[in-house]
Amino acid sequence: MKSVVLISGGIDSFVAAAFEKSQGSNLYAITINYGQVHRKEIDCARKIGQFLSVCQHRFLDIDLSWLPSTLTDTEYQRNDSFSEIPPSYVPARNIIFLSLATAYAESLDADSIVIGVHSIDYSGYPDCRREFIETFQMVIDRGIKKSVEGGKIILKTPLLLMKKTEIIKLGINLGADFSITWSCYKGREKACGVCDSCKIRLAAFSKLGLRDPVEYELKNFKR
Amino acid sequence: MKSVVLISGGIDSFVAAAFEKSQGSNLYAITINYGQVHRKEIDCARKIGQFLSVCQHRFLDIDLSWLPSTLTDTEYQRNDSFSEIPPSYVPARNIIFLSLATAYAESLDADSIVIGVHSIDYSGYPDCRREFIETFQMVIDRGIKKSVEGGKIILKTPLLLMKKTEIIKLGINLGADFSITWSCYKGREKACGVCDSCKIRLAAFSKLGLRDPVEYELKNFKR
Repeated sequence: MKSVVLISGGIDSFVAAAFEKSQGSNLYAITINYGQVHRKEIDCARKIGQFLSVCQHRFLDIDLSWLPSTLTDTEYQRNDSFSEIPPSYVPARNIIFLSLATAYAESLDADSIVIGVHSIDYSGYPDCRREFIETFQMVIDRGIKKSVEGGKIILKTPLLLMKKTEIIKLGINLGADFSITWSCYKGREKACGVCDSCKIRLAAFSKLGLRDPVEYELKNFKR
Repeated sequence: MKSVVLISGGIDSFVAAAFEKSQGSNLYAITINYGQVHRKEIDCARKIGQFLSVCQHRFLDIDLSWLPSTLTDTEYQRNDSFSEIPPSYVPARNIIFLSLATAYAESLDADSIVIGVHSIDYSGYPDCRREFIETFQMVIDRGIKKSVEGGKIILKTPLLLMKKTEIIKLGINLGADFSITWSCYKGREKACGVCDSCKIRLAAFSKLGLRDPVEYELKNFKR
């Protein structure tokens, strides 16, 4: 079984890929460099691919830095404070990522695509929700040669209903080395410890009574 | 009304965009340079954008030359002769194009996306069919911030049920200058006149009793 896994460099996609590997699949990784404000994620994605002994790791560059988001523009400020969707939202990001993963999967004649979305702790992003994933499966079923000629590529979301603590626990059970991941929105030498992404991660490790193996800038803050 | 139009450099997307403009929309063009075997299309796309006085023309580079297709690899030969889908099929191409157009449209707060697909003369490509388009509309409706917050981006396919002759006729009625288009799969100085894409185009002009304004290599062949 061949599986295309989207690897971002963070915890979620790492655990989703490790889980797929534990099910016996051969992994083909894809990482999109879309003009994030830093490249730390890409370096970590490479290490994660090596850690998981993927059969191939494809890195694609596409400049999306013109899209409004705090992930692509450190100065970006949105003026719709009513919105429940955080300013780190990048328009259509997972639609773009899944479309590229679909092309890769079809070219490999792969059986599945794995994406590490989850909707419990972080339901803000519309492209992480179950309704979206189910609809994208329909796009795969109707929009590619393999499907219309009787084949199938299954879009797998093993983490969809998991909390961050459960994801970390699963990763540890699968032997994942979280020291090679990067979650911080800043691209400095050490993680900042205060951005939303660091906060969610630190809170989950803390709840589990575990030490996050990544180094943080703030030495005295409570883990 | 703002509309994002996918412009490839060929006839179809030109006519679809010209039609949208005739309906009163302000056009925002997007052209994807995905590693086609030649860049003629991109040059024509730029001219078409200028011809249509688009408000902005965004050119995006993404290297898809590793995908199997005669459009990305002149040496490519497929070994599934049973397939009704031509070897010029690029895996998931319109899914990728529409996902990028969706991001662009959301960033502009546009009302619609226009794509020049049609399924009559060229039903081979699964990502040109009505079922696919309807499903991608659902992805837009469920997968982006604008939609889940009550907005709407409509995916428009004005040419979906038109024959090539009807598309050309519509373009002429709209004043489109087809001398600035490129359809040939080869990227030589003049169009080859014999590839599938040239053949379909020439046959349509011929049926209409019109002269194709593009120059062809073969001087003596019948138009």
